[in-house]
Amino acid sequence: MFSDDFNRRGVDALLNRWREKRLIFTPRFATGATNSISDVAGVIVGHSTLRDGDIQTGVTAIVPPGDNLYTHPLPCGAAVLNGFAKPMGLTQIMELGELQTPILLSNTFAVGTLFNAMVRKSCTDFPQIGRGSATVNPLVLECNDAFLNDIQAMAVGEQNVLDALLSATEHFARGSVGAGRGMSCFGLKGGIGTASRRDEKQGTQLGVLVLANFGVLSELTLDGVRIGADIERLLPELAPQVDAGSIIIIMACDRYLDSRQLTRIARRAGAGLGRLGSYWGHGSGDIAVAFSTCREGELLPDEQLEPLLAMAADATEQAVLDAMLAAETVVGYQQHSRLGLSVVLDSLAAPGL
Amino acid sequence: MFSDDFNRRGVDALLNRWREKRLIFTPRFATGATNSISDVAGVIVGHSTLRDGDIQTGVTAIVPPGDNLYTHPLPCGAAVLNGFAKPMGLTQIMELGELQTPILLSNTFAVGTLFNAMVRKSCTDFPQIGRGSATVNPLVLECNDAFLNDIQAMAVGEQNVLDALLSATEHFARGSVGAGRGMSCFGLKGGIGTASRRDEKQGTQLGVLVLANFGVLSELTLDGVRIGADIERLLPELAPQVDAGSIIIIMACDRYLDSRQLTRIARRAGAGLGRLGSYWGHGSGDIAVAFSTCREGELLPDEQLEPLLAMAADATEQAVLDAMLAAETVVGYQQHSRLGLSVVLDSLAAPGL
Amino acid sequence: MFSDDFNRRGVDALLNRWREKRLIFTPRFATGATNSISDVAGVIVGHSTLRDGDIQTGVTAIVPPGDNLYTHPLPCGAAVLNGFAKPMGLTQIMELGELQTPILLSNTFAVGTLFNAMVRKSCTDFPQIGRGSATVNPLVLECNDAFLNDIQAMAVGEQNVLDALLSATEHFARGSVGAGRGMSCFGLKGGIGTASRRDEKQGTQLGVLVLANFGVLSELTLDGVRIGADIERLLPELAPQVDAGSIIIIMACDRYLDSRQLTRIARRAGAGLGRLGSYWGHGSGDIAVAFSTCREGELLPDEQLEPLLAMAADATEQAVLDAMLAAETVVGYQQHSRLGLSVVLDSLAAPGL
Amino acid sequence: MFSDDFNRRGVDALLNRWREKRLIFTPRFATGATNSISDVAGVIVGHSTLRDGDIQTGVTAIVPPGDNLYTHPLPCGAAVLNGFAKPMGLTQIMELGELQTPILLSNTFAVGTLFNAMVRKSCTDFPQIGRGSATVNPLVLECNDAFLNDIQAMAVGEQNVLDALLSATEHFARGSVGAGRGMSCFGLKGGIGTASRRDEKQGTQLGVLVLANFGVLSELTLDGVRIGADIERLLPELAPQVDAGSIIIIMACDRYLDSRQLTRIARRAGAGLGRLGSYWGHGSGDIAVAFSTCREGELLPDEQLEPLLAMAADATEQAVLDAMLAAETVVGYQQHSRLGLSVVLDSLAAPGL
Repeated sequence: MFSDDFNRRGVDALLNRWREKRLIFTPRFATGATNSISDVAGVIVGHSTLRDGDIQTGVTAIVPPGDNLYTHPLPCGAAVLNGFAKPMGLTQIMELGELQTPILLSNTFAVGTLFNAMVRKSCTDFPQIGRGSATVNPLVLECNDAFLNDIQAMAVGEQNVLDALLSATEHFARGSVGAGRGMSCFGLKGGIGTASRRDEKQGTQLGVLVLANFGVLSELTLDGVRIGADIERLLPELAPQVDAGSIIIIMACDRYLDSRQLTRIARRAGAGLGRLGSYWGHGSGDIAVAFSTCREGELLPDEQLEPLLAMAADATEQAVLDAMLAAETVVGYQQHSRLGLSVVLDSLAAPGL
Repeated sequence: MFSDDFNRRGVDALLNRWREKRLIFTPRFATGATNSISDVAGVIVGHSTLRDGDIQTGVTAIVPPGDNLYTHPLPCGAAVLNGFAKPMGLTQIMELGELQTPILLSNTFAVGTLFNAMVRKSCTDFPQIGRGSATVNPLVLECNDAFLNDIQAMAVGEQNVLDALLSATEHFARGSVGAGRGMSCFGLKGGIGTASRRDEKQGTQLGVLVLANFGVLSELTLDGVRIGADIERLLPELAPQVDAGSIIIIMACDRYLDSRQLTRIARRAGAGLGRLGSYWGHGSGDIAVAFSTCREGELLPDEQLEPLLAMAADATEQAVLDAMLAAETVVGYQQHSRLGLSVVLDSLAAPGL
Repeated sequence: MFSDDFNRRGVDALLNRWREKRLIFTPRFATGATNSISDVAGVIVGHSTLRDGDIQTGVTAIVPPGDNLYTHPLPCGAAVLNGFAKPMGLTQIMELGELQTPILLSNTFAVGTLFNAMVRKSCTDFPQIGRGSATVNPLVLECNDAFLNDIQAMAVGEQNVLDALLSATEHFARGSVGAGRGMSCFGLKGGIGTASRRDEKQGTQLGVLVLANFGVLSELTLDGVRIGADIERLLPELAPQVDAGSIIIIMACDRYLDSRQLTRIARRAGAGLGRLGSYWGHGSGDIAVAFSTCREGELLPDEQLEPLLAMAADATEQAVLDAMLAAETVVGYQQHSRLGLSVVLDSLAAPGL
Repeated sequence: MFSDDFNRRGVDALLNRWREKRLIFTPRFATGATNSISDVAGVIVGHSTLRDGDIQTGVTAIVPPGDNLYTHPLPCGAAVLNGFAKPMGLTQIMELGELQTPILLSNTFAVGTLFNAMVRKSCTDFPQIGRGSATVNPLVLECNDAFLNDIQAMAVGEQNVLDALLSATEHFARGSVGAGRGMSCFGLKGGIGTASRRDEKQGTQLGVLVLANFGVLSELTLDGVRIGADIERLLPELAPQVDAGSIIIIMACDRYLDSRQLTRIARRAGAGLGRLGSYWGHGSGDIAVAFSTCREGELLPDEQLEPLLAMAADATEQAVLDAMLAAETVVGYQQHSRLGLSVVLDSLAAPGL
């Protein structure tokens, strides 16, 4: 029933761990207090979720500390791993290396509305925008949730953005919420996930949040075990997969770093994705953004970036698994459905199999 | 009264030519039949203009030939000369090298609305979008017209996009129209301009359209003559300049070229801008996009790109001057005003001065 | 003795497979006939190896089919995953998208000599170079072998380049040979490795060759099993690790692809490295180059790149393991030594442990 | 005899100025004390020139202040305007943003030898290189001087590098010296040129040095006047032009700036080249590098980069003209010759014409 003897043993060990501890991943580094992007002091996250029949989508806002990003932007870098994507705001971040707004996530066809909402809110908060002062550069990122969500309905409204911003908190929900509501990942349910790492020596905290919507099931690799093909075989009733994808990875760090360094850190998301079995598929918009919560400070020599690079890859891997584990099963557009990974693992770990 | 003897002679020669022929520029290469981007067969341009008191803005659409760009995209490349800008669609064009929609231009805060309109229109035209097929990647580019236009009003609506698309024609207006309505250029009135070049040997037509909104007056250089500071001195009543800027340069070519080659061509806009006195200012979002109207054909060896590179720089320079010459004076937001270059040159060339 | 129960089981399964079949990796796709870059018709590889006390280094040449690359270059793309590296030739390849010479690999301080040798050889073969025709753009890539090799001695001579080129063959040695002689990988012996994948549906062959010299032992991950830390614990006598690193990944494909597409494929090496436990360390020059052996043909739609992207990641992972498995133990500069992975696995798989 | 009336007047004015003041360019900003890159405190330049029949080439070294660049690198950025070039060192500078060695310039086929020489010298100066410490990243840039120099002879030796470094001084020669010995520019004699600008308000000094070897005569534009075609017509005996080209632009600044900002400044060289009539030709390797002489300090807000961007373009334009004016006529390989611009202007300004 399993692919080969080696893989069977791996799957056995994985399911055994799942049965005993409901764990499927061992972090390579110390995690932060809550293993969440909110372990980076001041970073909060909010969601607005639309779940009504064919409409399964939403907005997620990652809000950096301080309410004056327009006047006091934060250092920021970004890496496009695969550019089949429709981001807004990246061009200016790559030129100026700074983040001027909270980061907004949603479905592909909502980016215009998110932009509009963030412009309007920014003009309310900073009336000098476009009136003597420069305009504002909202950072808006997206994945395509068209399998579970009627994306053509363009159901996300500007109020959803305000709701997501207002609801932002350290203790935010994960899984099938906010922008993650309609997302698929490795043929199962994707969504919002998070993880964090702590470098004790430097006293640095790195947090990662993902909007996970990529991969085909056969590739899925859990803590090194290629379990995807086995799940496919065991649960042939799983929904067929479409090839659209994408993953957005947001990283926050409480150490002052410049945009070049943050770009180096952001890029390491790609290594974490590789460990999950991904190869950054053609149709996937794989984009990573990293910001620092410090506007100034002593610049870290690049040699000392080493632990941050390693932790960025490791936390990205776990954040995706967190999204999948936290995600409840969703039935949406045209009765399409995606199963949560926990359900699948429970089913695989059941005595009968 | 003039900066120095050499410059005085240059200004004299320029004004003399203006008096006699109303010309301020000599193309370095043969121009196309109408010296317009529409000389590239099938490329048409439409505008929707809002002009009402504080609202001085609009939409311009550049429509490539064929009505099936989503199913049959065109080769496309892009170059970011200075990334203080909020484009949509560039990331995917840089990855896949293809143009999937007409190109839309407007003011900075209208890009969300333009995106929404283009998504809706695309879904109407191609109902498979996001339903089995991939989503669509609208290309939307902007400049900041906040000096003449109440940009916070976000006056552009989705209907303006449809209007601009519907009105597209070979014989399109230039100057203070469409997206160009509220634009400033070198402290004078900017807007939409165009030019074209023809390589007789290869039989290739290159067309350029610009949305010109950059530069400070003191830099303005007409056909090599640094006239900006002299204008400043002669017309001290000219409106004070704000530093916001940007220029969008769209190039079309009727020869099959791949996206790498089109990117090389697009980049040459920067040389043309330099000749106008620009140095691609910090606050200017200077972005060039080049597309081919041919989906396939024999690839041109790069050595043979030489004339296209030269013509791209030359036509960009002239397209900006075309925008400035065609632009009528506009009075807008808070009674701010920008004079058309023709008016200024007439005034300078008048016998009294 | 092992890190945790889950990991212990993984290591057990791995060593069991090693004992039975001397295998440590299951390819995700069909391999080519010899699982080597030479499965791409016409691609041959040659080495010149220096092994004499403190001098443990050499040259490896990857020779594409045809002896007229200068006059008939091949499509080529490249991706810099981490740029702590001293390559020659990349700038022009990124601009023009073409490969003009065989690809040469060696140690960091040999690139000047490799360049000189390739220029001289090219001028002999094509006397028009620099005499009416353009100069030539040698592609030279390097890793730092200073742990095992007295790199300051700059022992590689131009004759080594000629020797490597002349000895090129389909049936080339792997492991501690040529440029790989002095390389380390995950604290063990690195060097030259190769793998290939075949897409039966498209009839496309993709080959990968690596010069592997990266990673620290604790990260080493074999077919998903994090065995590195366990090896470290079991074999504490292993040489201490320096942080210098790098990996060069060369890909060849027998399908016509343009340089943009080849760049997309090359970039996927990063996913394969991630699966090995790497995060593209700060001090590592991680560069991938991909070329096609076809000068022209019908362009593949990007959707059909999908299998090539997946195979590129998979073959990169295996090529590194091939380098490590094939590498014999080397003792070099100042009696520094690196153990071959096979020896280590044998030792771990021995009954006593 | 002249192209048209407007152009004739421009040429007249230009020659008049030449006759009276031997000037052909008016800087747009205040120049430094000596209008040289050495106006940036501590920056010195040295040459080693080979002039013997067919051999007309050399080495130029730009030496930043301090003799400890390996242990205390300087912030550095780089921009590739057109990548038909064979630089060494750029990849690492783009990743790490730092300059580790003096900058070396020579002909295309000398880069291997320059690299070797700089590695050897660095190992002498810093014996820890490659022995516990990382390797060193020499920055070596080139232009193709094959028209005047027998480039296949590869006449530059490592001693020339040492000679150039040793001879470095604030009061360095310009024109047909060092790396500039065999260079052509706009069909006339090119070579080494320099200029500097001073921002009085910020107290910042920007210096530029170019190795100018690009352009065809018909494009040549002097202070806005398109004189190239006229020179071509007046002096038909001028040597025929080959299409190979390139320009290297080195910028130094005495203000602390990070590598992202230095990259922005470097890129502005392109605007300066445009003003000279260049469009960054296909076959030209146009690369700009900018470094700061300060290792640390308060970071300048990007808005305040504005004067530096403008001065970078302006000084680049003048540095090229400086190279051409300072360059003596050279006869070299196969009796090919290039006339100095001063000779040409004298000839044009002579009463007879």
